[in-house]
Amino acid sequence: MAVKILITGGTFDKVYDELKGQLYFSDSHIQEMLRLGRCRLDVNARTLMMIDSLEMTEGDRDLILHHCLKADEKMIVITHGTDTMVQTAAHLGPHIRDKTVVLTGALVPYAFGSSDGLFNLGSALSFVQALPPGVYIAMNGRYFSWNNVRKNRDTGVFEPAD
Amino acid sequence: MAVKILITGGTFDKVYDELKGQLYFSDSHIQEMLRLGRCRLDVNARTLMMIDSLEMTEGDRDLILHHCLKADEKMIVITHGTDTMVQTAAHLGPHIRDKTVVLTGALVPYAFGSSDGLFNLGSALSFVQALPPGVYIAMNGRYFSWNNVRKNRDTGVFEPAD
Amino acid sequence: MAVKILITGGTFDKVYDELKGQLYFSDSHIQEMLRLGRCRLDVNARTLMMIDSLEMTEGDRDLILHHCLKADEKMIVITHGTDTMVQTAAHLGPHIRDKTVVLTGALVPYAFGSSDGLFNLGSALSFVQALPPGVYIAMNGRYFSWNNVRKNRDTGVFEPAD
Amino acid sequence: MAVKILITGGTFDKVYDELKGQLYFSDSHIQEMLRLGRCRLDVNARTLMMIDSLEMTEGDRDLILHHCLKADEKMIVITHGTDTMVQTAAHLGPHIRDKTVVLTGALVPYAFGSSDGLFNLGSALSFVQALPPGVYIAMNGRYFSWNNVRKNRDTGVFEPAD
Repeated sequence: MAVKILITGGTFDKVYDELKGQLYFSDSHIQEMLRLGRCRLDVNARTLMMIDSLEMTEGDRDLILHHCLKADEKMIVITHGTDTMVQTAAHLGPHIRDKTVVLTGALVPYAFGSSDGLFNLGSALSFVQALPPGVYIAMNGRYFSWNNVRKNRDTGVFEPAD
Repeated sequence: MAVKILITGGTFDKVYDELKGQLYFSDSHIQEMLRLGRCRLDVNARTLMMIDSLEMTEGDRDLILHHCLKADEKMIVITHGTDTMVQTAAHLGPHIRDKTVVLTGALVPYAFGSSDGLFNLGSALSFVQALPPGVYIAMNGRYFSWNNVRKNRDTGVFEPAD
Repeated sequence: MAVKILITGGTFDKVYDELKGQLYFSDSHIQEMLRLGRCRLDVNARTLMMIDSLEMTEGDRDLILHHCLKADEKMIVITHGTDTMVQTAAHLGPHIRDKTVVLTGALVPYAFGSSDGLFNLGSALSFVQALPPGVYIAMNGRYFSWNNVRKNRDTGVFEPAD
Repeated sequence: MAVKILITGGTFDKVYDELKGQLYFSDSHIQEMLRLGRCRLDVNARTLMMIDSLEMTEGDRDLILHHCLKADEKMIVITHGTDTMVQTAAHLGPHIRDKTVVLTGALVPYAFGSSDGLFNLGSALSFVQALPPGVYIAMNGRYFSWNNVRKNRDTGVFEPAD
């Protein structure tokens, strides 16, 4: 019973460029985070892209959908920037029938001491094992169905859309 | 839909005494961890005891059971030392009918940079929302029913007992 | 025998804006860092500005010089962005006679786990107590006189200019 | 102009044994700390022992003295447990003529997020470059001559003995 992790970038994986003084994407921190969590799930991680979710195109979302559909695993976690996580969930939602897909991310880069990333990864990997098939977002310790969720721009918190 | 958190101590909450050079229990880190996880669940936390789980008595376990039974919440997370977490789960298991109870802990104190605590708390708070009524242990990114789990003393990893 | 700390901003004190996904300046971390270092020096800290050193003007440097000259303390540490730290040191150098002034900063924000900030602060506070009067830069575990130092743009490392 | 670092253990280098739930000594963290501090000093580090300073014998102190005397470097930093750091400094003090020796340590293990270790290492490496020959302790952001220092057992703070 393996879990697939599809990595797309987002704040999760931003690191600090010492020379330029800017945040940028390097390699994913997922393996390090799984080690820190002493995670013993059978996990297959694959990096699809490493981008800011504000730059994600429809073509990128088709690629994510394609990888969800062709995956052998019935449980899929997607790490994703929070800015357009809701759009990607809505892109996947109507097409996923027999798998549980959970999107998660972080408000603060994992490389910061104050990141919510490790908490969110533990949360997403748990929801994906226990929720029925469908597409969900796991943030703030909660889960939301793809067709009833929004990110509150003022607070940064995910909440039901209605 | 609130979640009850019952705090009993364990490695989770050990801190370092600078003067004596020893680990000891101070206040719980749960509130700080919930803040770090940007958790927006409705959580009621209560400290029942603050002890090493090797020192936990049957009376202590009766107290935990009592608080589970009388809680208004249908979802209960218990933070607990890993050494006797399996015994406490077995103590609760036969008596819990209509609630979901999830025990979790940490192999390394939260105050250490290398702790699995934040990952495990995210995991336990998610399983408790998504699993059917019963008593479970959430460790290593997985969940185990109270009547089929053991801690492997050689590796520190939780695994099915059979 | 007190030490004056003049705070001007720089990478040292950048934090992460969760809503905008950008680095910005908030309050200084100096007090927290002194607490972490269990520092028992008699320290008077004052924030003069909170800016990126690339935006520092001659007027800003005059202000820093003014505060160095009028300070009662004979030992002064200045936290400063690394990009123009050399220019500010050169601005102060010819005017400081009877005081020891040490500029320091960080390549990575203190809020990141991988920051060099705490090491550099410990270093600067020590050099300022032990070096003869003059203006110095303390970075990379070394100290440099204001008239023989440059920042290597390719490596981010401070080194003698000649 | 190289600096010798002699490693003897102490709280600095204690790590957490996940299986036994105890602190123990593993490898030294010095190299990792020098990397974090972006230290560019020419450093030669050598582990002499890896023990709690309460267990240090006169023979151990003779060994440390021997390594100080025979070292080619004129600057020597010794990492040491805080409990008997004063005794070791007193053991070395009368015999060191033409070198600067600085002992330092940590009240909290480096592996803890709240450690003073990185601050103290930056401090000791700076004092050793700037102080005249002699034997010193660098703790709490200050330095003390070997013949006028004590550790206050009630506060954990180093202070002048008289």
